[in-house]
Formats: sequence, C-alpha cells, structure tokens
Amino acid sequence: MYTLGIDIGGTKIAGAVCDENDKILSQWRVPTPTEPEDINDCIIEIYNEALKLHDEIPTMGISAAGNVKADRRTISFSANIAKWIDYPLADRIEELTDHKCKVVVENDANCAGWGEYILGAGKGSRNMVMLTVGTGLGGAIVINGELYRGSFGMAAELGHLPMVSDGDFCGCGLRGCAERYTSGNALERFARAGIRRMPQKAERLLELCGGDVHALEGKMVSQAAQEGDELALYAFGKIGEWLGRTMAAIAAVIDPDTFVIGGGVVSVGDILLEPARYNYVRFLQAAAYREHAQILPATAGGDAGMIGAADLALRAVNA
Amino acid sequence: MYTLGIDIGGTKIAGAVCDENDKILSQWRVPTPTEPEDINDCIIEIYNEALKLHDEIPTMGISAAGNVKADRRTISFSANIAKWIDYPLADRIEELTDHKCKVVVENDANCAGWGEYILGAGKGSRNMVMLTVGTGLGGAIVINGELYRGSFGMAAELGHLPMVSDGDFCGCGLRGCAERYTSGNALERFARAGIRRMPQKAERLLELCGGDVHALEGKMVSQAAQEGDELALYAFGKIGEWLGRTMAAIAAVIDPDTFVIGGGVVSVGDILLEPARYNYVRFLQAAAYREHAQILPATAGGDAGMIGAADLALRAVNA
Amino acid sequence: MYTLGIDIGGTKIAGAVCDENDKILSQWRVPTPTEPEDINDCIIEIYNEALKLHDEIPTMGISAAGNVKADRRTISFSANIAKWIDYPLADRIEELTDHKCKVVVENDANCAGWGEYILGAGKGSRNMVMLTVGTGLGGAIVINGELYRGSFGMAAELGHLPMVSDGDFCGCGLRGCAERYTSGNALERFARAGIRRMPQKAERLLELCGGDVHALEGKMVSQAAQEGDELALYAFGKIGEWLGRTMAAIAAVIDPDTFVIGGGVVSVGDILLEPARYNYVRFLQAAAYREHAQILPATAGGDAGMIGAADLALRAVNA
Amino acid sequence: MYTLGIDIGGTKIAGAVCDENDKILSQWRVPTPTEPEDINDCIIEIYNEALKLHDEIPTMGISAAGNVKADRRTISFSANIAKWIDYPLADRIEELTDHKCKVVVENDANCAGWGEYILGAGKGSRNMVMLTVGTGLGGAIVINGELYRGSFGMAAELGHLPMVSDGDFCGCGLRGCAERYTSGNALERFARAGIRRMPQKAERLLELCGGDVHALEGKMVSQAAQEGDELALYAFGKIGEWLGRTMAAIAAVIDPDTFVIGGGVVSVGDILLEPARYNYVRFLQAAAYREHAQILPATAGGDAGMIGAADLALRAVNA
Repeated sequence: MYTLGIDIGGTKIAGAVCDENDKILSQWRVPTPTEPEDINDCIIEIYNEALKLHDEIPTMGISAAGNVKADRRTISFSANIAKWIDYPLADRIEELTDHKCKVVVENDANCAGWGEYILGAGKGSRNMVMLTVGTGLGGAIVINGELYRGSFGMAAELGHLPMVSDGDFCGCGLRGCAERYTSGNALERFARAGIRRMPQKAERLLELCGGDVHALEGKMVSQAAQEGDELALYAFGKIGEWLGRTMAAIAAVIDPDTFVIGGGVVSVGDILLEPARYNYVRFLQAAAYREHAQILPATAGGDAGMIGAADLALRAVNA
Repeated sequence: MYTLGIDIGGTKIAGAVCDENDKILSQWRVPTPTEPEDINDCIIEIYNEALKLHDEIPTMGISAAGNVKADRRTISFSANIAKWIDYPLADRIEELTDHKCKVVVENDANCAGWGEYILGAGKGSRNMVMLTVGTGLGGAIVINGELYRGSFGMAAELGHLPMVSDGDFCGCGLRGCAERYTSGNALERFARAGIRRMPQKAERLLELCGGDVHALEGKMVSQAAQEGDELALYAFGKIGEWLGRTMAAIAAVIDPDTFVIGGGVVSVGDILLEPARYNYVRFLQAAAYREHAQILPATAGGDAGMIGAADLALRAVNA
Repeated sequence: MYTLGIDIGGTKIAGAVCDENDKILSQWRVPTPTEPEDINDCIIEIYNEALKLHDEIPTMGISAAGNVKADRRTISFSANIAKWIDYPLADRIEELTDHKCKVVVENDANCAGWGEYILGAGKGSRNMVMLTVGTGLGGAIVINGELYRGSFGMAAELGHLPMVSDGDFCGCGLRGCAERYTSGNALERFARAGIRRMPQKAERLLELCGGDVHALEGKMVSQAAQEGDELALYAFGKIGEWLGRTMAAIAAVIDPDTFVIGGGVVSVGDILLEPARYNYVRFLQAAAYREHAQILPATAGGDAGMIGAADLALRAVNA
Repeated sequence: MYTLGIDIGGTKIAGAVCDENDKILSQWRVPTPTEPEDINDCIIEIYNEALKLHDEIPTMGISAAGNVKADRRTISFSANIAKWIDYPLADRIEELTDHKCKVVVENDANCAGWGEYILGAGKGSRNMVMLTVGTGLGGAIVINGELYRGSFGMAAELGHLPMVSDGDFCGCGLRGCAERYTSGNALERFARAGIRRMPQKAERLLELCGGDVHALEGKMVSQAAQEGDELALYAFGKIGEWLGRTMAAIAAVIDPDTFVIGGGVVSVGDILLEPARYNYVRFLQAAAYREHAQILPATAGGDAGMIGAADLALRAVNA
C-alpha cells in the first residue's frame, strides 16, 4: 500500500509514490500553473499516472506554501496563490479522485522539517526545530518525535518572530520580523547596503549584477562569498548573526536539542553556519550554565518536502 | 497513598500533603532560610510533621525558583539562593528521608503553570502558556496536555525572550529581555519614568512613596491604578502592552489556545489584561486570518505551585 | 542688479529672476532631462531668456538634489542624477556663461529652508530647523540667522538621523534612518502594513489604488485621510509620531525655537502636525522643565527653493 | 583686570583667578556642601580670598552641573543639587558681593567644552563637538568659533540623544538615551553583563570587585583593560561602539570638523577611542563620499572647566 506525496512549489509541482519506509518508487514533475483549478488538474494527472504503475494509492499528502487550518484540509491563505483564500484543497482533490484517495494537506515548511526529521539531519533527535532559509524564513517544530502544529495550525511561524522593535516592515504587515534579517531577501539587502556603504570593496558584486544593484540576486552573493569576496562574506555574516539570534529566541521557548538549517541559502555551508553558531551562543540565555543544541545543515535533499508530505499523510490516516 | 508538595518561595517554605485528586489534606508554612542546608532541614521538618498525620509519604515534589536540570533532581543555578550551583537537591532530601521518599524537583514557574492547568484557568485547554508576572516574568508551557520542559530543562524561559534589540540590560546578562518590559520591576520603572516626565500628574504616586521615587513599589502603583490615578494607569498600560507583544511572539512559535496570566501584578485584573489583549491582537502575525487564543487570569490561587509540584512528582513516579 | 535662482527638481527645472528684496520679476519652467550636459543646456537657455529681459545677471544660485561640497560649487553625489559624482556644476555653468555669471550651488533642502526663513514661517526666528517631508525627509538648519552648512557641507542630513537601532534598511546603506519612518515613502508603507493587518478597514484605500496595494501612492492616503478614513489617519498618525520623535532628537542637539514642516505630505495640515506636536513633547528631554519650540507648517510656497537659492547666491557673492 | 572661574563639582568646588589670556594666577579648592546657601558661602569665601591677592575681580564665571536658562543666571534644575529648582544663582552671588562682581552661570559640560576649544584639543577647529564621558555623557557644541547654547539654553544635551527605540530606561524618564550606552555607568553595566554571560573570563574583574559584581566600579574596569583583560576590553569595546554611533548621529545634524572626547573614562586612551573611531565611520552617513571629522582626546586637563567658565564670563560681559 503506497502513498502519493505532492509538493506544490513556486515553479513546479513534484509528485512521488512512496512505500511505508519513505522510499520513492516513482516520481513526476510538471510546471506550476497559477489558477487553483489548473493546479488541481496537475495533481490529478500525477495521481492517474501513479495509478498506472501502482494498484492502489489510498492516501495522498500535499505540501503547500500557505497557512493550513488545523483540520489539515483547508488553506486559509497563501502568499503565492492569490485565490487560495479559505480554499478546501483536500475536498477538491478527494472529489476528483472519486473519493478513492484520502488527502492530507500540510504547510510546506512543516513537510520539509518532517522530511529532515525522518530521513535527514534531524533523525534521532527528540525536540527539533527546522529553519528553512529561502526567499523568506520558514519554520517547523518537532516535539517528542511528532510534528507540532499548534492549536490553530499556526505554530512554527518562526520567520515572523519579532526580533527588532520598530524594525523593518515585513510583508505580513508587522515590523522587525526575523525573516527581514535572515533570509535570501535579507541577504540581498545586506549586500546592497554594503555596496552603498563600501563602494571600494564592491567590485566583484557589481560585476556579477552587471553594475545594477537592484539586479543583485542572492545566488550572486553566494557565488562571490564562495570566492572569498569580503563584501559578500559580510552580508552572510549579518544574516548568520540574525539566524543565531533567532535560534536563541526560539530556544528560550522550546529548548530543542537540534536545529536543522535548510533552504537554498544554506548551500554555502559554514559561511552561513559559523556566524549563526557563534551568535547563537552569544545571545542564548544562560549560555554558560546549560547544554547547547546542535546546529546542523539539512541533508535530506530536495525531495524531503514531498516525502515528508507522504509520510505525514500516512500517519494521519493510520492514527 | 499521599504526596507531599513543597514550595520554596523567597520568604516562606510551604508544604502540603495532597491526595491523588490534588486535594490538600494538611499543610505547613515556615520562613525561608538562606543556607541550602537550613532549607533542607525545613523541608525534612515538614516531612516529619506530615508523617505524624499520614502513614506513608512515598513521593515529594519540590517547586524551586531556579533552573532545574533535565534529570529533575539538580538545580543548575538560582537567582535567589546563591549556593544552589549544580546543587543535587533531590539527592540531599532523599538521603535525609533515609531513601523512604522519592523526590522530584521542578522549576517554580512550571509548577505554578501546571497547577493552573489541572485546577485553574487552564483546565480543559490543550496547548497552554502561563506567564507569571511577579518581580520578574516566569513562563510555563503545556503541550498536548503535558508540561513541556525542553531537551535540557530550559524551555519556557519566556521572561528572557528578546523583545528589543540593543534594549534594556537584564540581570541575566542579555539585553531587551521580555521581563525588562513586563514585570513588577518594569511596572516600577515605567511609573518612575512617568513621574519624571509628567511631574504635574505625579501627586498621588509621590504621596504613596513618601516623595522618594526610589521607594516606589509595585503595590503602590497597583493601589493608585485601582483608585483611577492616570500615571499609574499609564504604567500598567505599558507593561500590558509589552505583555501583549510578548504573547504575540510566543504565539509565533507555540500557537497555544490559552494564555493564563498569574503573579502578584495581575491582581489589578483588566487594568493589566485589557491592554495586554489589545496589543496581543495588534502584534499577532496574521491576526485577521486566524483563530485567537483566549487570555485568562489565573484562578488556582496561591497554593497552585505546591499542588502542581505534588502532582508532577506523582506523575513522574508513576510514569 | 538681479539674481537668477534655479531649482533643478525631479521632473522640472524652474528659474526666476529675483531682485534684492527676493521679489520674482520673471520666471521659466522646463522638463528635467536625465543627462548632466542636457541639464546644463536647460539652465543656460533660461539664463539667456533672462538676459533678454534684464540687462545684467551677474549671479546665479542653483538648488540641486544632492550633496554639495563645502566649496558650494561641486556635487559629490546625488540619488537622482546618477552621473553627478564629484560633478563641478558651478564650473560648467560659469564656462557656459563665458564667466559673466558667478554661480553658487546649494542643496535643495537647504534652499527650501532658507526660503522659509526669509519669506515664510521661519521669518523672525533665530535658530530654525526645517524638515521637508517629501518622498524622503530633507533638512535645513538656520543658526543665529544664517544657514548652517557644517564643516564639510554635510550638516542637516536630518533624514538620516538614526532613530531605530537595527531598523529599516535605508537607501543610504544604513539602517533605521528617520526618513524610513517619516516621509511620503514611509506613509505608503504604514498604509500598506495597515491594509494587510486590518483588511476589514481597508475598503477605501483599496478602492483608491484599484485593489493593488503596490499601486498605493501617498496622495491616495492623503485623500482618504482628508475624507476621514480610519486606516489613512492611522498611517498619518504613525509618520506624525516619528516626525515628533525626530524633532525631539534634533532638539537634544540644536534646541531651536522654531521647526518648520514643509514638503508635499504636509498639505494635510494638522492631520500630520497634531501627532507630530504631541509626540515631540512626549519624547522631548526635560519637557516639563523647559521652553518648547513652535512647530509650524511651511508658508512660502513652491517657489521658496528657487528664491532661497537666489538669495543665498547673492549673499555669498556679497560676503 | 582679572576674572574668577568657579567649578562646582560633585565633591569639590574649585576656583581660580585668570588673566585675559586664560592663565591661572592663583587657585583654591574646598569640599562641596549639599545646601545651596552653603555652596554660595563657599563661593564667596573663595571670592574674598581672591580679593586679598588681586585688587579687582569684576567678573565671575560659574560652571554648574545643571540645566542653565538662556539668561545664563538661573539653574532650572540639577540632578546633583536637589534644591536647585529655578534657582537664581547669579542673583544670589551678586548680592553677596554687594553687586561688585558680575556673575555668569554656565552648564559644566559647556564650560569643559569651551576650555578644550580655547586651550586644548579643539584649538583651531571651527565647528567642534565635545563629549564628556563621565558618570553620564555630557555635550558641548562650538559653532563658527562660538559656544552654541540653543534658543532656550538646552542645546548639546547629547547624552540624551535617543539611540535605541524602546531602549534602556534613563534617569531623565526617556528610554534609549545615548548615555545609557556610552558613559562610566554604561561601562559598569556592560562589564557586569559580561561577567554574567562569560563567567569563565571574569576572574580578574571579580578579583578587583572582591567577588561582588554590584561593587564593580568603572575604574576597576579601566585598570583591568589596561592590563589587557579580555572582558574589560569587551566592555570598553561596547561603550566605544556606542560612542562612535552617537558621534555619527551628531554628525548628521552638525557635521563638525572636530570631536573632542573628555571625561574620566577617556583616560584609557585608544582602548576607548579606537572602537569609537571605527564605529563612527561604520555608522556615518555617506562615509565613503565625504570628509571625516577628527576624533581627539581632551588635552586641557582638569582645570579646563574652571578656565572655560572664566573665559565665557569675560566674553559675556565684554559683549
């Protein structure tokens, strides 16, 4: 008996059939459309392809970038898909499978975190926090070996922890949210500020963005940092500092044994993680009198979210 | 079979024998000495008195103001009792009972929170956060109906959530901790700042402190606020604002269904809770698109910590 | 003997011939080109037109949006005209007049401030600060009745006073600058944050921007505020608060008798000035024990910068 | 014709007769009493002693730690002498001299700043800012070679520049004032925070304060820093950072050519000044595109305030 895991990303929808040991048996990938109905069609297309290879797919887990209600069926809103407002995604997909497949919807950061917990760097930990440093900053929390979703499905919104009173305006309407200081977006802003402040050190970054600071992208900063460029390393030092500060704030609430850092920005490895570890201890309450959590890069790879979704769905149905 | 709950407070040590339904059968109270050995003697004295009334006391729960290790036996350090540094309190007490009584030590804010959960305002909630607004700001977290202690016994240090970058110096050595803005101590500082800034409105507060702003105490501000004094209400409005902001930060991590607010400062009721509720919503991420936790005053009374300690010890021994 | 005042704005170049009493005798207006040479040609065109009407124009004052060196001849850089880097504007224009006209260049906020001082709301004050709340936040300082330019021509960069440690990223490369919190740009961001946080109150603003929050402009917020819209008034309340806080910071250094508030945003009058005045006193050091500066809206009108430039040039040449 | 300069300090009242070239001819020193009348008597005693040596003392300048009104005769309030509230100090002293001596009162930070300008590190500068890093943080501003007092005598209250929104509570009733982060008081708090956070590096500082962190004084931190103690150097690094940030904020308003740093804390020299210079440039607006002020230690010595008072009084009377 197999489970279909679906990951609705910003550019592609990926799907995989997994067995009970979270092993991928077969997988598909299509571009992401913008209309909810077209997204549904893509998912059903993958489902039908899967049925050609596997007799029965009684369960489907969907990873979606949006706030998912506590029922794990409805998306309350999404920054990516404008029409997903109180959208009953599980209902729609179940109808389209003639109710032959039970659907569980989960927030994408939660799925990625769960994937790391069962397959990756978080394996064997008890209380784990995953931070996904992508365009923004996503969070997932595992407590006593189970994904923690909160009372209303809104736990682990760690990118919106308030870090600076009266700070940077966030897209969520609040100010000083963690993701304004530690994310791919923040990396670009620290790099741009550095170019403006230290023009004499900006040669390489200006070269990479063709002389237009507004065209500067995170991956250019990553490339320059890996070449040893001072200004790019400064920008990573700053988001690393704030990553450490954010983890220290989380530790005051959760006191986990393990932090896993994922997302595209972490590809630079210790360039990000060293300042993060240093500042974690610097801002950790009672640092000299307590045991410290380990801070690890994610290892489960790009399919972690899809597999995590499948695994969570299977557990939900079996519970 | 009964359990002894002990609450080591700043001024008194209280003890009570509880039955399995958390009912108090008998209780004692003695002044708190300053030396660890004298504290131990006081506890044993209560234990011996209890044995005169009840055949068997196989379990004891101790609530202590300090950081308790994950083993729930050792105090790593305490702001109140200077010599409690890596102090094996459970070992010492068990020895003094000739190993006839099994001892479990728990942080005082955790005991108070657990008392509220089983007997008070938190009853029936699933994920609960208690904030104790006393001299400082204590925290306790209940997740899925169980006290959450974290991987190293340091969870729920909510008074040390960083709220202001580069903010007020805290006794813990960090800056901008929540308890610098919402606590009895903060209440006094907001009131003093108000007296300095608005001398024309300071008459009543100056009268209460005999004209010496350094002699101003939290209870004077509470009294003036209940009389309707504008400056005292301002000071409560400020710590209420920061209480709301702190809860909003906690909600980004935990997303609880219930906040319980206890501690001496909450005796003014809605004078504190109204600004707290208002600012909770004001600073809550996605406030318009989610369900909101209830914010309730504590109801379990002054014995909640002692009963909570007994109940937690009984559960630990039975587990 | 007359003086030509030139104001190089973002969209138009305006010029006026003034007599020694700062009275405008004749004036011209052309669109602003993007290349420095084309700008110079426009200025010379106005100069030649002026010579047709007036026998002699021995002096020209130019108001430019950029940092002007202490020599009052060279623009070190400008956020508007990219090629104005160490640009010898006065040299260029003097050459093009065959050295028949002496040119003085001055920062635009300084010219506007000086115009208010000699003709407008600042008249009769001794120590005056002008804040121009436009897209950004410009500043000018008059001390003992003379424009104060600092030792290196960089005084009165009041929009870049640091107000929030670790705050909002500013285009200048620093963080938490005053103009991030009080400016037309800030008004839009406060309004957008309000729409996001309080969607139930956003009807009017969404109507004005055609449902697209990114298309929201300051003038729409002004219109809604003047209609009494709650969300728009909230946004003005916030930039007014920060305007007050910024003035209080300036008062700790300069202690002026008069603040003049100009710029497009101040057209709403007391909607901006009331929260500014309230918060000025709220954040003013020793507010209860000192005299307070008056806070006035600008009155000299849109030609103040051009006239100010002419007057400053005449004084410089006569000095 | 000679002038008497008087410096009313926290522990002693010093007086000196100066000639027109600011040369000290004779001087006296007595302990500071607490009552205003007794202070007056001490001043008159010095005045009478001076008259025994010099025929005529027609002018007296008094340096006082308090806010002096724009009339330069009245103290509006003082943090040191509680009864100096709207106290007409010049009137009282002139009466006691039978109106034979004209008295001018000036704020102590202004007198020290003026002394540095005429005799010390500020000599030859045009626009100078002096910051006196003592228990608190005092300020003085010289503009175009003249002491700048503001419209109401409250200019240069630089210790109360707001540096951190929602920051540390200041004795003035505001929050986040510069002197909370850069002063002798701040040095002690940074050192105490360091001891708490890094107990493994606290040996030397704990030794100097006898193991009681509350007994730690600034001079102990200075001593340890000069010995090379890491924790003490950390504490100086922090107040140096904030000194640099404060100067950068001042430069956005005043753009001086010279900063002079005085006060007891500056005795450690570059231990303080190096981090101050580094962070000045780090936080200076448009640092890469402008000339930079020089940052110098004070050189005029402990009599600078007294001489400054005499010189200012002479100028006032001659004006």
